[in-house]
Amino acid sequence: MDSGAPKRSRPRSPWQPSGERARQRAVKREAVILAAARIFRERGYHNTTLDHIASALNVTKPTLYYYLDSKEQIIYECFRVGIGRITQGLAELEQSAACGRAKLEALVHRYAEVMASDFGWCMVRVEEQDLGRLMGRRIKQLKSPIDQGIRRLIRAGIEDGSIRACDPKMTAFALAGALNWIGYWYRAGEPLTPAQIADRFIELFDHGLRPR
Amino acid sequence: MDSGAPKRSRPRSPWQPSGERARQRAVKREAVILAAARIFRERGYHNTTLDHIASALNVTKPTLYYYLDSKEQIIYECFRVGIGRITQGLAELEQSAACGRAKLEALVHRYAEVMASDFGWCMVRVEEQDLGRLMGRRIKQLKSPIDQGIRRLIRAGIEDGSIRACDPKMTAFALAGALNWIGYWYRAGEPLTPAQIADRFIELFDHGLRPR
Repeated sequence: MDSGAPKRSRPRSPWQPSGERARQRAVKREAVILAAARIFRERGYHNTTLDHIASALNVTKPTLYYYLDSKEQIIYECFRVGIGRITQGLAELEQSAACGRAKLEALVHRYAEVMASDFGWCMVRVEEQDLGRLMGRRIKQLKSPIDQGIRRLIRAGIEDGSIRACDPKMTAFALAGALNWIGYWYRAGEPLTPAQIADRFIELFDHGLRPR
Repeated sequence: MDSGAPKRSRPRSPWQPSGERARQRAVKREAVILAAARIFRERGYHNTTLDHIASALNVTKPTLYYYLDSKEQIIYECFRVGIGRITQGLAELEQSAACGRAKLEALVHRYAEVMASDFGWCMVRVEEQDLGRLMGRRIKQLKSPIDQGIRRLIRAGIEDGSIRACDPKMTAFALAGALNWIGYWYRAGEPLTPAQIADRFIELFDHGLRPR
């Protein structure tokens, strides 16, 4: 039975629905990590304070604390984002039907892109030992699948005949070293794009230096 | 005319002759640098104090100051020793009559030896930006001849036909990256010697991964 009273619409809340709030929080947290990676690269990790990061984002330090606990947590997140992009590439490649060498080459492209980014800088220029024992261990754990993944691609290539017999561990170290080093020397204004750098590296690792 | 007085022999000084004192000082200074490089590798640069270094040498901190002014000066000397070993190798090779590729391979051997040493660790794991602007610049100046030298060897190899046409800058970066990375992963107990690591790298850079 209808009471006749008009249906009361809920008063509109000045707060956003909780799903939207969570999304907004994630977006802002990511902005903090992105800004921090850039500032770490510009000033060096040890010379950067949370105030520098807050000021680049036009917020106060207490606002930063709402998203991330400490500078150490922020650098950890920088590692996580950079490493995540490479391991995601690895996971996608391992699904593909290409030969080992083709997969390895695709990974070199992905890896070079990451290393030329601000995250790449953080991944090679911040000293794990300076991050405390626990954090250093957590970052090592994040990195380990990359080395293991590269070795797997090399072994797969040797098995399918696309890569000649070689020492997978030393080859993986040489490749990772060449790629990680991009984080050291790559600067804004470098004439080659990350993709072109990857192509030069692939040419070298594919054919070697000895004339054919 | 002889006065008849007995010739007086000089009283023996409890101090050593100044040449010997300078030599002793150089030996001790080198011992400080060597000990420091090892401790930096073990504890990380930022976690190492001059007390740690003094205690490893059984001396007091004031004794250290007699040889080196500061931790920053000590790490600079670690860079200088490590880089010096590579540039000395380069200088010797540039005198030799070998082809460009043979010289490059000899350099890879020398470079790998340095990177597996405590000095190699310091050279890649200590963040230049953390050393102050002036010191960072001085270290960059020390390093620059290595990159230039590798490029020269590559160009010489292309000219004499021992290295196939390639981008000397990117090839030098890839080589240096692979070699510098040894400073990150090499540990006491690694089954391969630095010379064996160099051989694996040369095999890779010589022939590439593509089956012949």
